[in-house]
Amino acid sequence: MKVLAVGAHPDDLDMLCGGTLARYVREGAAVTMATVANGNRGSFEHTREEIAAIRYDEAAAAARVLGAEYRSLGVGDTEINSADQAQLLLVTELVRSVAPDVVITHYGDDYMPDHNETSRLVEAATFFATVPLYETESAPTQTVAPLFYMDTLGGVGFVPTEYVDITDVHEQKLSAVACHTSQVGWLQDHDGVDTLGNTRIGDLYRGNQCGVTAAEGFRQSVHYLRLTTRRLLP
Amino acid sequence: MKVLAVGAHPDDLDMLCGGTLARYVREGAAVTMATVANGNRGSFEHTREEIAAIRYDEAAAAARVLGAEYRSLGVGDTEINSADQAQLLLVTELVRSVAPDVVITHYGDDYMPDHNETSRLVEAATFFATVPLYETESAPTQTVAPLFYMDTLGGVGFVPTEYVDITDVHEQKLSAVACHTSQVGWLQDHDGVDTLGNTRIGDLYRGNQCGVTAAEGFRQSVHYLRLTTRRLLP
Amino acid sequence: MKVLAVGAHPDDLDMLCGGTLARYVREGAAVTMATVANGNRGSFEHTREEIAAIRYDEAAAAARVLGAEYRSLGVGDTEINSADQAQLLLVTELVRSVAPDVVITHYGDDYMPDHNETSRLVEAATFFATVPLYETESAPTQTVAPLFYMDTLGGVGFVPTEYVDITDVHEQKLSAVACHTSQVGWLQDHDGVDTLGNTRIGDLYRGNQCGVTAAEGFRQSVHYLRLTTRRLLP
Amino acid sequence: MKVLAVGAHPDDLDMLCGGTLARYVREGAAVTMATVANGNRGSFEHTREEIAAIRYDEAAAAARVLGAEYRSLGVGDTEINSADQAQLLLVTELVRSVAPDVVITHYGDDYMPDHNETSRLVEAATFFATVPLYETESAPTQTVAPLFYMDTLGGVGFVPTEYVDITDVHEQKLSAVACHTSQVGWLQDHDGVDTLGNTRIGDLYRGNQCGVTAAEGFRQSVHYLRLTTRRLLP
Amino acid sequence: MKVLAVGAHPDDLDMLCGGTLARYVREGAAVTMATVANGNRGSFEHTREEIAAIRYDEAAAAARVLGAEYRSLGVGDTEINSADQAQLLLVTELVRSVAPDVVITHYGDDYMPDHNETSRLVEAATFFATVPLYETESAPTQTVAPLFYMDTLGGVGFVPTEYVDITDVHEQKLSAVACHTSQVGWLQDHDGVDTLGNTRIGDLYRGNQCGVTAAEGFRQSVHYLRLTTRRLLP
Amino acid sequence: MKVLAVGAHPDDLDMLCGGTLARYVREGAAVTMATVANGNRGSFEHTREEIAAIRYDEAAAAARVLGAEYRSLGVGDTEINSADQAQLLLVTELVRSVAPDVVITHYGDDYMPDHNETSRLVEAATFFATVPLYETESAPTQTVAPLFYMDTLGGVGFVPTEYVDITDVHEQKLSAVACHTSQVGWLQDHDGVDTLGNTRIGDLYRGNQCGVTAAEGFRQSVHYLRLTTRRLLP
Repeated sequence: MKVLAVGAHPDDLDMLCGGTLARYVREGAAVTMATVANGNRGSFEHTREEIAAIRYDEAAAAARVLGAEYRSLGVGDTEINSADQAQLLLVTELVRSVAPDVVITHYGDDYMPDHNETSRLVEAATFFATVPLYETESAPTQTVAPLFYMDTLGGVGFVPTEYVDITDVHEQKLSAVACHTSQVGWLQDHDGVDTLGNTRIGDLYRGNQCGVTAAEGFRQSVHYLRLTTRRLLP
Repeated sequence: MKVLAVGAHPDDLDMLCGGTLARYVREGAAVTMATVANGNRGSFEHTREEIAAIRYDEAAAAARVLGAEYRSLGVGDTEINSADQAQLLLVTELVRSVAPDVVITHYGDDYMPDHNETSRLVEAATFFATVPLYETESAPTQTVAPLFYMDTLGGVGFVPTEYVDITDVHEQKLSAVACHTSQVGWLQDHDGVDTLGNTRIGDLYRGNQCGVTAAEGFRQSVHYLRLTTRRLLP
Repeated sequence: MKVLAVGAHPDDLDMLCGGTLARYVREGAAVTMATVANGNRGSFEHTREEIAAIRYDEAAAAARVLGAEYRSLGVGDTEINSADQAQLLLVTELVRSVAPDVVITHYGDDYMPDHNETSRLVEAATFFATVPLYETESAPTQTVAPLFYMDTLGGVGFVPTEYVDITDVHEQKLSAVACHTSQVGWLQDHDGVDTLGNTRIGDLYRGNQCGVTAAEGFRQSVHYLRLTTRRLLP
Repeated sequence: MKVLAVGAHPDDLDMLCGGTLARYVREGAAVTMATVANGNRGSFEHTREEIAAIRYDEAAAAARVLGAEYRSLGVGDTEINSADQAQLLLVTELVRSVAPDVVITHYGDDYMPDHNETSRLVEAATFFATVPLYETESAPTQTVAPLFYMDTLGGVGFVPTEYVDITDVHEQKLSAVACHTSQVGWLQDHDGVDTLGNTRIGDLYRGNQCGVTAAEGFRQSVHYLRLTTRRLLP
Repeated sequence: MKVLAVGAHPDDLDMLCGGTLARYVREGAAVTMATVANGNRGSFEHTREEIAAIRYDEAAAAARVLGAEYRSLGVGDTEINSADQAQLLLVTELVRSVAPDVVITHYGDDYMPDHNETSRLVEAATFFATVPLYETESAPTQTVAPLFYMDTLGGVGFVPTEYVDITDVHEQKLSAVACHTSQVGWLQDHDGVDTLGNTRIGDLYRGNQCGVTAAEGFRQSVHYLRLTTRRLLP
Repeated sequence: MKVLAVGAHPDDLDMLCGGTLARYVREGAAVTMATVANGNRGSFEHTREEIAAIRYDEAAAAARVLGAEYRSLGVGDTEINSADQAQLLLVTELVRSVAPDVVITHYGDDYMPDHNETSRLVEAATFFATVPLYETESAPTQTVAPLFYMDTLGGVGFVPTEYVDITDVHEQKLSAVACHTSQVGWLQDHDGVDTLGNTRIGDLYRGNQCGVTAAEGFRQSVHYLRLTTRRLLP
């Protein structure tokens, strides 16, 4: 099984679906973690180039913790734009190069535009990936991939319809989140947010909702060609 | 695995989840089909007693086609009432006597009150079944059963979040529906409805939505103690 | 065409769909206005019997202004209860005795229980009216009547999907509302509410929404056997 | 200011709005905590009478911790029923005897029927309390009280629109919850649930959503006569 | 009466509202069918130019079957973009050149971006068409046209609020769909979809929902200046 | 307290939140009213430059009536576009230059694209304003501002969750609206709309909903980092 997870910034996937990705890896799936943006604007002390380089290394380290491959599409923070044909090409080529059985991305009504635009890019690109005369380097995929939306930041306004038990991989997930040293500090300074603590609380909260110790919640993209008759989440 | 499906009238389950029940049976589950009402008011030609007896036999025959056990709780048509303590006791005892791993019932916003009240009765009874000092003949169940709502009549206003592939059991399902000879005629006369034809069209329609030939759609009861981290539908 | 409108209390229909009923009458329809409750608890000065008698006369006068027939089912204020089999029989017999082509009643999420329970009673009774072995004095109806929900009090939480232009009958509607002398005074005292003024403002507000001077808004009951392919509102 | 909170069972209010009630008390409000049911069915070891007595004492102790008065309406567990005229009278008299400026109760789509029925009872009773000819011992109230719904169990399906900062009273709230010794044990045995731990996690989770350490979330009853132009939560 | 229907690709209108357009034509309306995209990417065997030319001819033939005029705006597949000022001008000029009494287009939450972007373009253009200093070749229209959204592909996630009976024109509609020879083959190859079969099933399914043999479902754009007090669908 | 209100066109704020802004001013807040567009296309008689100049003066006069400062960002009517990086920079700099404690803007599902795009621009810009390496002239803000959506035109499809009592400033609001002489005439000619009359009716309607003479309704942006535990509206 091949899994593609696409987040906006280098730490989003670890926080919002890191446990699920670790579960996929344990079950033998090949997992690719990609971020559309390079994290180049979230710093009070570094230049754009510096912070982008730092965050790339952090994200790659976090992916290693989870057993996944990491890729960055290199778009600048705040510039993710689903109306941008170049970005659509980039994400479509990403989808084709992975040819995933299932895709995870942001929910389209999250707290900041890069997340919402990533969601729209991925929804579009997983369709465009199947169109033969929409040309990118890799060959078209055979099917429109089923798509799952991960939780919002803080879980605000998100009611999961499916849950993944991440109890057995919870420490692994938190270790992955902890790799984002610069971002953990940035969110503390920028938003007064304790990333590791909040991630842990969120996982226990979602766990309590579905009867396990720790969990992550998801909703599926309910659109034609996306729906299936079996569970695709681990 | 033990499955309990609870419908309002003797033909509802066959039409709305008959294929799914057949799938459960094929996978080795023990399936109990129960109806709260006895179908005693849906006839232009028989007395209440006559039509209730006819419909009991039809429902039992349909259950045999699907490989399930059939029970009727014997409430009169139009009298299903989730505010009625006696009916709550009846349904709770039903739940306890089966001790199901998963329960299927009507969606709470279907086209006629008996369906909606059945939905509320089952939602309540699967909880009350676990309460030790809520006394009925059988012993309390250990857990609040996960609950799935089946499609509405005609699919009106219902957006499934999960689908079951019933392609391989479709003829079996239609045979079960066809057992309800009296009701097929009654719906033709009462509502101008072609039950077998509409059931078949509905199954193909839901199949098209999820990429198989024939399917049935469901939504889950999203409430505390009901949620799980694995698929319970076949 | 035969129209049945069912409200909870003697003034509800005049305020919430009086203009629409006047339009039906102008187009030649036979309109029956019925109230489930008798208005026997909404007074600071009269006994139950006195205020019920006063309000009956007011409602009958208002119906005459609109050109409709008036009936009261005589249930006490605060006692409307869709789980009460006797009330279901009462409303079903009402439906059968009129055999309406279209029914109007309260929205199910209005500001007080009698309104919401009336909505449920009417939704149930219009179905039960077709069931041959559900016996009341009159003969069963042939079809489940299409059902429209009128606006809520103050329009709170209500988004109309259909509008009726009542510009030409607006003064007639306001005259009908004004017949409820005791209630206009009661709502002023009980809730600090200016009934006539608020009714007028609400009609102009709904009118502005759909491009006419004055209008009333409705939503349809979206359930199997209720839907049609032509407009039933005037 | 007078505040009335009405829960289904003796521990619900402490878990779901205990911090908010403590905040009200600190600001000088008179707070009444009432439960419709007496908790007489939630035990594996006691008789109904024994467990009801135990839970009354626990709830009274918890209310003392919060600085509130406690009352039980004495309905049996699983028997709360908004269609029951006697219960409507009981809750209406409760409302009148307090004459609250604001009321808090369960959300109407919580995980078990007693919660949902309590919500409906309180919504009805706060209206009926103003009706002069709806007679109970105390005098009618002057206005329909604004009504807030507290969180669901586990927060499942609940999206708050208003938050209360309970950081300063969090330990006090947890102490109140801890008074329910028998229930903490019961939920552990009945549902495998760690009440104190889950309450703490839920409070931190809601706190993270609104930028404070610990919080409780609410939604308002959006209906005519209930809405105001100022904040009524602390 | 003048009707404008705007779809994304050359076959969308025939599948999703072809029967309704045939009904309009029968009632004497002048119907214009326009597609924003030219269908230039949906082929495994042709070049973009070839398939665009083929699909233009197919769409024109289908429009002739329905009695409508056909126009293509010539945007490339996958490139429809409501943030593109040039496309907004194109669609606005289309609206002005037709000056329609009613407009039909895609629902904004359909299964692929071209559909959703078409919906937004048409919603915008029908407003911009009225703005005098928004200059295109044709004169501004006098009013913002009422707008109806047609069904989604497979009907996924779409709950119609209005239905059109297409029983009498069903074969005509299916003949129009059948004109799209290349697309019928493409969807079979690309998505494993039987276009004609699914269209027929969908029409019978929607027909069953509203009590006729075959129907199409719609929702209205509920926004200021769009709403009316009479039925605009046939 | 510093308040920033951002509308699409020069009269939108006065109509939809003018009373609330007057209330803020009375309470001592510094209020900035900004419009993204310059109103340069809403005229049947003037050139773009002429009408833009006229409307600037009218908006400035209206702001003076309310006691607020007025700014125009100078984007052309129909050209507001949340996917446009230049417009994002403009609005972000606006937010930073004000550093508001609370922001008011359009609801994202209003009747014309400029309103909806303004809503998205403001939602994005209030976030981007906090990002240090997103560079504009002014310094980044410290926090993501809480955001309130004002009513839609005609109130269509909008259910307020919070209300502001504008009774005491109602004449002042209407005077501000009346400053838009050219627009009052334009809306009369373009849409057949009586702006002053409809504004007055809308205010009385919203007032009736929340128990005061005149009011304005709002919904909050329910997203992470936006939520608070105290009322920010006056």
